[in-house]
Amino acid sequence: MPPAQLDRTHAADARSWVESANDAASDFPIQNLPFGVFRPRGGDARIGVAIGDRVLDLRAVVGSCAIEFFMKPESEALGAACGADALNSLMALGSESAHALRVAIFDALSTDAPQAVQSALSDSLHPIGEVELLVPSRVGDYTDFYASIHHATNVGSMFRPDNPLLPNYKYVPIGYHGRASSIVPSGSPVRRPHGQTRDDASAPPSFGPSKRMDYELEVGIFVGKGNPLGDPIPIGEAWEHIFGLALVNDWSARDLQAWEYQPLGPFLAKNFATTVGGWVVTRDALAPFRAPAFARGDDDPAPLPYLSDSADQSAGGFAVTLEVWLSSDRMRAEGAKPVRLSRASFTGMYWTPAQLIAHHASSGCNLRPGDLLASGTVSGPAKDERGCMLELAWRGTEPVALPTGETRRFLEDGDEVVLRGYCERPGARRIGFGECRGIVTSAPPGSGRRP
Amino acid sequence: MPPAQLDRTHAADARSWVESANDAASDFPIQNLPFGVFRPRGGDARIGVAIGDRVLDLRAVVGSCAIEFFMKPESEALGAACGADALNSLMALGSESAHALRVAIFDALSTDAPQAVQSALSDSLHPIGEVELLVPSRVGDYTDFYASIHHATNVGSMFRPDNPLLPNYKYVPIGYHGRASSIVPSGSPVRRPHGQTRDDASAPPSFGPSKRMDYELEVGIFVGKGNPLGDPIPIGEAWEHIFGLALVNDWSARDLQAWEYQPLGPFLAKNFATTVGGWVVTRDALAPFRAPAFARGDDDPAPLPYLSDSADQSAGGFAVTLEVWLSSDRMRAEGAKPVRLSRASFTGMYWTPAQLIAHHASSGCNLRPGDLLASGTVSGPAKDERGCMLELAWRGTEPVALPTGETRRFLEDGDEVVLRGYCERPGARRIGFGECRGIVTSAPPGSGRRP
Repeated sequence: MPPAQLDRTHAADARSWVESANDAASDFPIQNLPFGVFRPRGGDARIGVAIGDRVLDLRAVVGSCAIEFFMKPESEALGAACGADALNSLMALGSESAHALRVAIFDALSTDAPQAVQSALSDSLHPIGEVELLVPSRVGDYTDFYASIHHATNVGSMFRPDNPLLPNYKYVPIGYHGRASSIVPSGSPVRRPHGQTRDDASAPPSFGPSKRMDYELEVGIFVGKGNPLGDPIPIGEAWEHIFGLALVNDWSARDLQAWEYQPLGPFLAKNFATTVGGWVVTRDALAPFRAPAFARGDDDPAPLPYLSDSADQSAGGFAVTLEVWLSSDRMRAEGAKPVRLSRASFTGMYWTPAQLIAHHASSGCNLRPGDLLASGTVSGPAKDERGCMLELAWRGTEPVALPTGETRRFLEDGDEVVLRGYCERPGARRIGFGECRGIVTSAPPGSGRRP
Repeated sequence: MPPAQLDRTHAADARSWVESANDAASDFPIQNLPFGVFRPRGGDARIGVAIGDRVLDLRAVVGSCAIEFFMKPESEALGAACGADALNSLMALGSESAHALRVAIFDALSTDAPQAVQSALSDSLHPIGEVELLVPSRVGDYTDFYASIHHATNVGSMFRPDNPLLPNYKYVPIGYHGRASSIVPSGSPVRRPHGQTRDDASAPPSFGPSKRMDYELEVGIFVGKGNPLGDPIPIGEAWEHIFGLALVNDWSARDLQAWEYQPLGPFLAKNFATTVGGWVVTRDALAPFRAPAFARGDDDPAPLPYLSDSADQSAGGFAVTLEVWLSSDRMRAEGAKPVRLSRASFTGMYWTPAQLIAHHASSGCNLRPGDLLASGTVSGPAKDERGCMLELAWRGTEPVALPTGETRRFLEDGDEVVLRGYCERPGARRIGFGECRGIVTSAPPGSGRRP
């Protein structure tokens, strides 16, 4: 893993001619430039870059040749990738192309850009509130990890008080394959699923709407360059396969999960919807916020050699602060503001993104550009750092109070969950991930079929 | 579920002008007509139909308008789907289109076809041994079930002798999400994976090539028509979402699996390769071989209503006989023929394909055309019906003898595993699935990286 390379794109005082980007509260200053896929009103899907309260339409930019960079003959593949309707081709080009593109966009959006460039690009900016954000890539495969030791310990202690962490946890980055078809963009309603549950171990199970629907605050890692089947990715090269990070809400039905998950893991409890935030914050944008890997205790084993890399240990983490916000139907009706349920740091994860990548490919499994690896629920050690309702309300035993006097053990219909993420530190410009939003809607009537 | 409708395409005495199809030993008589995707020498991928020892190039047929059917204006979508390089579009058109296409191809390949049609089609036939078979569809998501109660009981009793079947087994069609990226066509070599294993519970795990590599004999169900996210598929309609069946070998690394699978299920132990047979035998071709669902015991619970359908119970199974054949390097060197390791019937599965489909979508999870649902290892109650080496050699305690004097507890490098499947009954023409072949190659050297 290379050291964090800071350049003019990270300068805290860099400013954009898109004025809203210079607002200190904006998630999308010129130091960020996250990629996404959007549909303008009446238009079709295309790649965009967030800048302040605007989205730069990369397809239009490529078409107009407004950025000199795109006209260089060597960047034909990059130009084509920018004109696509998903990020996969751009992700496939690897980190050097992603870096070059980022620098070119930075220069074009900077206050130092020639007036002609500013004029040309002005026509390719859409108000961010007027576009529809889509899932950033065509996700070929979605993998969900379990990388927060705090989450694993909390959940484990509910079910195995004497032995919360299984013997493999500190050796194996535990993960499982998720469902790609049901990945939805931020803002999509999420229908409460039906499923089998068994409340009483002496009675047969029943089938009906989940009574224990939950969210999970996660960080998604979008794969850049892929690897051929059969060809593992050494930990020292794993970094090169990370395109960027995004917010992920891995909706879960805890009652379905408890009944179905032995012996092959979660299935229907997790496959009814996974919401992905619209903006992928690139590895380059995150350079100022790199952080040491989890500080293992003296009794903890060292990572096995295939997961061990000194640069990864010293700077393979990302200092992203992550929050969950909730508003109920009644809160919105009464004009109450959303409440923050938790706030935790991504640095608390037991495994780094590079370790997740290297582990995933260690069997020879091929990762493809645009694949999504989610971190698992991001929880910290404190109660207000617990990243899902199962932990926060401790399996329903410690209900969460809302400002309306309502309480929550799990999610109710009409509850809207919004995830947010941002990075800030002295001397660097704060950057953000936007939001990952979803509202719980009622289960289908009857046996589960829509009327 | 509709009753099995037999028509002229199922008549046992129907014959093709492709003479090899009339050989009683052929897997591909005119009563079968399975779909696949192939590359002719020097050509690109296209859809084909197996007939005797030939493959009919559907793209060429569409281009030449040799089958009158394709020229009808209403079948434009079907014509386009036949010209694609994967079966997804054809699968998406649903069972009526698949039926119409099958009948049209039957008529064109029948000895009753006009001479002009026979002449035109002759140019579009490739010798089956000279083409490269590919994975039949672009598999968006791959799901692996665990539907053989014999397999589940065998595996469970190795690990929990007093309580082999978990309490959920007879209620929940247990399944998990698999890896789509590593699905490979029949004939692909399969590289032994590296991974973490722990032989001694008192020692730390180690990382290296799997020592317990295994095959799993499975049947794959290719999804035809999909369902929208949030919209479950009632059991009575599940039938309409089945395009056809194919052979699947879900390669497994048992030592990796044992160490990693708690609490979220198998991951690297299963994602290094899954081999899919080249031919998808359609639901229509299987009509003469429909069979009752598993006969549950008096003490077994009835399926919950969302999995219960009287037509499915009486005729939702498929009487497919499935075999596993093995040859070692040494066997091939000494000219020994492959040995049959097991033979079992797909009718022994505890859940029908329609139940697997209905369960999968019961959460609202969307299935897409071309998705693959595998049955799980097909084992019967007898020892020679055990569909994986883990069961056959009973966790290594009962090694399997080979004709060379070699023994097998698990697979060795150079072992070639071939799955076969066929349907036969009095009064019907036997049909087959071709083969699903894979040879185990050595693990990458060193830490897992190819040199």
